[in-house]
Amino acid sequence: MTSRPRRRSKRDQAEGSGPRAPYITRRIGTLNVLSEEGLETIETNADLILSQTGMEFVDEPEVLEIFRAAPGCEVTGTRVRFAPGYCRETIRATAPGRYHQQARNPANSVQIGGDATVLCPSWGPPFVQDLDRGRRYASYEDFVTLVKLHQTIPWLHHSGGVVCEPVDLPANKRHLDMLYAHFRWSDRAVMGAFIGAERAGHAIDMARIVFGADYVAQNPVLYCVSNTNAPLVMDAHMSGALKTYARAGQPVACTPWVLTGAMSPCTVAGTLAQVLAETMAAMTLVQLINPGAPCLMGSFASTMSMQTGAPTFGTPEAGQMVLAAGQLARRLGVPLHTVGTLSASKLPDAQSQQEATWGLMMAMFAGANVINHATGWLEGGLVTGFEKTMLDADICGKLARFFDGIDLSENAQAMEAIASTGPGQHFLGSAHTQANFLTALFRPETPDNSSFEQWQEAGGLDAAARANALWKAHLERYEDPGLDPAIDEELQAYIAVRKAEVPDANYF
Amino acid sequence: MTSRPRRRSKRDQAEGSGPRAPYITRRIGTLNVLSEEGLETIETNADLILSQTGMEFVDEPEVLEIFRAAPGCEVTGTRVRFAPGYCRETIRATAPGRYHQQARNPANSVQIGGDATVLCPSWGPPFVQDLDRGRRYASYEDFVTLVKLHQTIPWLHHSGGVVCEPVDLPANKRHLDMLYAHFRWSDRAVMGAFIGAERAGHAIDMARIVFGADYVAQNPVLYCVSNTNAPLVMDAHMSGALKTYARAGQPVACTPWVLTGAMSPCTVAGTLAQVLAETMAAMTLVQLINPGAPCLMGSFASTMSMQTGAPTFGTPEAGQMVLAAGQLARRLGVPLHTVGTLSASKLPDAQSQQEATWGLMMAMFAGANVINHATGWLEGGLVTGFEKTMLDADICGKLARFFDGIDLSENAQAMEAIASTGPGQHFLGSAHTQANFLTALFRPETPDNSSFEQWQEAGGLDAAARANALWKAHLERYEDPGLDPAIDEELQAYIAVRKAEVPDANYF
Repeated sequence: MTSRPRRRSKRDQAEGSGPRAPYITRRIGTLNVLSEEGLETIETNADLILSQTGMEFVDEPEVLEIFRAAPGCEVTGTRVRFAPGYCRETIRATAPGRYHQQARNPANSVQIGGDATVLCPSWGPPFVQDLDRGRRYASYEDFVTLVKLHQTIPWLHHSGGVVCEPVDLPANKRHLDMLYAHFRWSDRAVMGAFIGAERAGHAIDMARIVFGADYVAQNPVLYCVSNTNAPLVMDAHMSGALKTYARAGQPVACTPWVLTGAMSPCTVAGTLAQVLAETMAAMTLVQLINPGAPCLMGSFASTMSMQTGAPTFGTPEAGQMVLAAGQLARRLGVPLHTVGTLSASKLPDAQSQQEATWGLMMAMFAGANVINHATGWLEGGLVTGFEKTMLDADICGKLARFFDGIDLSENAQAMEAIASTGPGQHFLGSAHTQANFLTALFRPETPDNSSFEQWQEAGGLDAAARANALWKAHLERYEDPGLDPAIDEELQAYIAVRKAEVPDANYF
Repeated sequence: MTSRPRRRSKRDQAEGSGPRAPYITRRIGTLNVLSEEGLETIETNADLILSQTGMEFVDEPEVLEIFRAAPGCEVTGTRVRFAPGYCRETIRATAPGRYHQQARNPANSVQIGGDATVLCPSWGPPFVQDLDRGRRYASYEDFVTLVKLHQTIPWLHHSGGVVCEPVDLPANKRHLDMLYAHFRWSDRAVMGAFIGAERAGHAIDMARIVFGADYVAQNPVLYCVSNTNAPLVMDAHMSGALKTYARAGQPVACTPWVLTGAMSPCTVAGTLAQVLAETMAAMTLVQLINPGAPCLMGSFASTMSMQTGAPTFGTPEAGQMVLAAGQLARRLGVPLHTVGTLSASKLPDAQSQQEATWGLMMAMFAGANVINHATGWLEGGLVTGFEKTMLDADICGKLARFFDGIDLSENAQAMEAIASTGPGQHFLGSAHTQANFLTALFRPETPDNSSFEQWQEAGGLDAAARANALWKAHLERYEDPGLDPAIDEELQAYIAVRKAEVPDANYF
C-alpha cells in the first residue's frame, strides 16, 4: 500500500482553513419528522410487506439457497418471504454500526457510521456537460478529468465510482478502466464495480494489488452500492455483486431506488414502508452470507411528476423521506447511505441549485453517513456537469463548516471585543477581528459578493460562468498523488489479462 | 372592515391543492445547534453586555425617561445599562408568546408565534430587476405591481411593507402611498411605516380607517420591524416608531441587523450574545411602554467577506446563528422574526438559489415565526427581482408542504396498493395512484422536469427565463380583492391632507 503523507495544496494553505478533514464529523444533531408511533407504523408495515408479499430474488439460485437455509425465510420459487421481525433481528444482531473504509492514502480513510458523513461525487451519468462543449456522451477522458477534479475539491471525501459512464469503452470491460483511474489519479477511498459477481471480483482483485491481499481480507477498501429493482425485486446483477462484496467483508449500501408513484405508492408513508422492506431484505442477505459484514441502509427515494411521469428532485416529499430514513436507520443500528444534490435541470442554473441545496441539506439533517451524488448530478442523473460540480462543492463545504457546530471558546465569545469596541463603532479594525479574520468565516468559491458596479466591470458573469473558470483553475492546480510504479504495472497487467479473456461487448 | 370571503383562484382549484393556508403550521420540529450549557453562555454574555456596556438610545429623551423610571435600568446620558436578568424577566413577565395579526380579509389573518410561520416578501430594495428591463430604480408602478404579484402567490402570507422603495415619490411622503397600495391591492396582513413616530402614527390612522378605530384598539393589524443600529445603538427613527406601535398594541419585531465582523464580532458566539442583548433591550422598551404589547425577538445576523468587507449570505455561520436565535427566542417565550431567501447575487442565477434555499430552510428549521424577505431579495437587499420572486416562491411552497409533516393515514400507508401491485410491477395505473395523483405530490412552478429533447424543443430555457414568463402569467390572473369605495375615498382623503401639510422632501 502506498502511504506517502498527504501534501496540503497551496490553495488549502492560502485559505488558512487548516488541514482538510477526511470526512465530516457532525456536531449538530438530526431533524426528526416521525414520532415513535409513526416509526412503529412504518416498521410494522415493512414487516407486513416482507411477510405477506415478500421479495423476488431472480436469476441467482445461490441466493435462494442462502435464504432457504435461514430459519426466518420461506422461499417459494424466486419469492422470499420473511417472518415478521426476522430481518430486523438479523441485522441488529450482527451488522456493525460503524467502521472505516481505507483509502490508499491513510489520511483520506473515511469513517462510515456514527457522527461521520462521507460525501461522494456524481455517479452513473452517461453524459457530461460544460459551458464550452455543451452536453455530450461521456468519454474515458472525461472520466479521468472528473476523478482529478474531484481530488482537488476538499469537501469531497471519496473518489466515488462511475463518476460518468465512459461510453467510448466497451461496456463489459470499462469497469476495469474506471477503477484503475480512481487508483491512479486519486488517493481517496473508492467504490467497486457494482454490476454482477464477476466484475465485483475484478474490483477485489485490483484492490488486493493496491492494498495487499491480507490487508483487504481485514479491512474495507471498496464500497459498493447495490440497488433493488423496486418494487420488491433484486436481480442477479445486484445480488451477484452484493454477495461477492459481502463475502469479502466489503461494505454494501443496500439501496432501493424508487420514484414515488411509479416504483412505489405515490405517498410518503407507503414509499417508506416499501423502502424499509427492500433494504432490510438486502441487508439480511448480507448478514446471512457473512455475519458481521459491513452494510448500510440505503434510501434513494425521490418523486415524479404525477402529470408527466418525469422524475422530480428537491421536493418536499423527498426531504421528508430522507429524514425519516435517517430515523429508521438509527433504529436498525446501521449507517445510512443516501443521495445529495440531485436535480432535473438541464443546466447549472437557478433550478439546479434550488434542488441541489434542498437535497443535500435534507440528507445532512437526516444524519446520513454516506451521501452519493453530492456534486455534479444534472438531468435526473443523465449528466455530470462540470460547472454544477463546482457549485455543489460549495454546498458541501458550507455544510461541512456548518456541522462543525458553534465554537464557544473564550476567543469565539469575543466579550472583550464587544466591550472595547462599544456602541456605534465598527469591528473591522478591532484586534479580535484582525486575529481571527483568516479563519473566522467560511469562504465558498462560486458566489460573487461584490457590488453591482464591480461585478459589471468584471464581466457581469453569472454563477455558472464563474464556475466554468473555476473548474479549469482547479484542474490546473491538481497534484498527482502518485502511485508506486510496481503497483501501477501490476494493475495494468491484471487489466490486460482480463480484457483479453473475452471479446468487447456493448452490453453489461 | 371589508370581510368578503376569499375566492379561490382558478389556479388553486386546478392544482387540487385545497384551500390556501393563511400561514404555515409547522408539524415538524426545530433543529437545535446549542446545548443547554451553550445557551446559558450566550445568555450570560448578553446580560454582561447589557449591564456593563449597555446600549445607546439617541435623540429620543422620552425613551430615556421611560428607562429612568424602570427599576432595573441605569441611565447615564444616552447610555442605558440593565441589571443582569432584568430584561429577560421583564420580557418573560408580560410579552405574549402568541397572537394574531388581522388582515382586512379575515381569511388571511395570521398567527404570530407558536407553531405558526408567516412568510413575507422582499423588503427595502431601492432597485427592481427583471430579465426584460434589467436593473433599474424602483417606481411606485413597480411597487403596485409587486403588491399584486405577491397577492397571487399562495405561499406568501403577508403583503409586507417596503416591497421596493418607490424612489419616484418624495421620500417623506411615500410611506402613505405604500400603505395605501397594500390596503387597496392586497387583502392580506400588512406592515406599517417603520421610520419615525410621525409616520408610524399615519399608518395607525390609515389602519383605523380600514379596520375601524375600536377594532385597531383591540387587535394587531399592523406589523413593524424595528432595527437597532448595531452595535448597541437605537436611534430615534427606530425607537420613535417602536414606541408608537407599542402604545397602540401593534407588534414590533425588535431586530438587530448585523454583518458579523463589521457590526458585531466576526464569530458566531460573539454575534449571538450581542444580538440577544440588543433585541432584549428593545423588547424591554416595548414592555415598559405597554406591558403585554406584542413583540418579537428579531435576528438578522449575516456575514461578510473578511477579504473585501462585502456582505455575504447563505453562509454556514448565518445558518448557525438563526438556528441558535430560534432556541434563544423559545427560552424567552416570544416569537422569532428573521429573514429568508437572502442573496448577494446580481441575477436570478445558480448563486441566488443556492443562497436563497439555504437561508429559508435554515429559518424554517429554526422555528421562525415571521420570515421577512422570503421572496425576491437580490444583491444584498438592493434589488427586488421579479424572476427571483417566482423562484423563491417555489421554495416557500415546498417548505409549506414539507412542514405539513408526513401523512400517516391508512390511505397514505397504501398497504393495499403495495400488496396488489406486487414485485416488479409499476404503480402508475394502480387504483391508489389514480385516487391520489392530484394531491399526492407538491408541484412547484419553476422547475423543468421534462427530457432534454422536450426541453430543447420548448426553447431550452433556463429557470430564470421560465420565471420571467411565470410572473407575467401570475399578474394576468391577479384578482382585485376589492376595497369598499367609502373606505377607499376616506384613505385617499386622509393621504391628501397629510401630503398637503409639508413640502416634498427627498430625505426621511
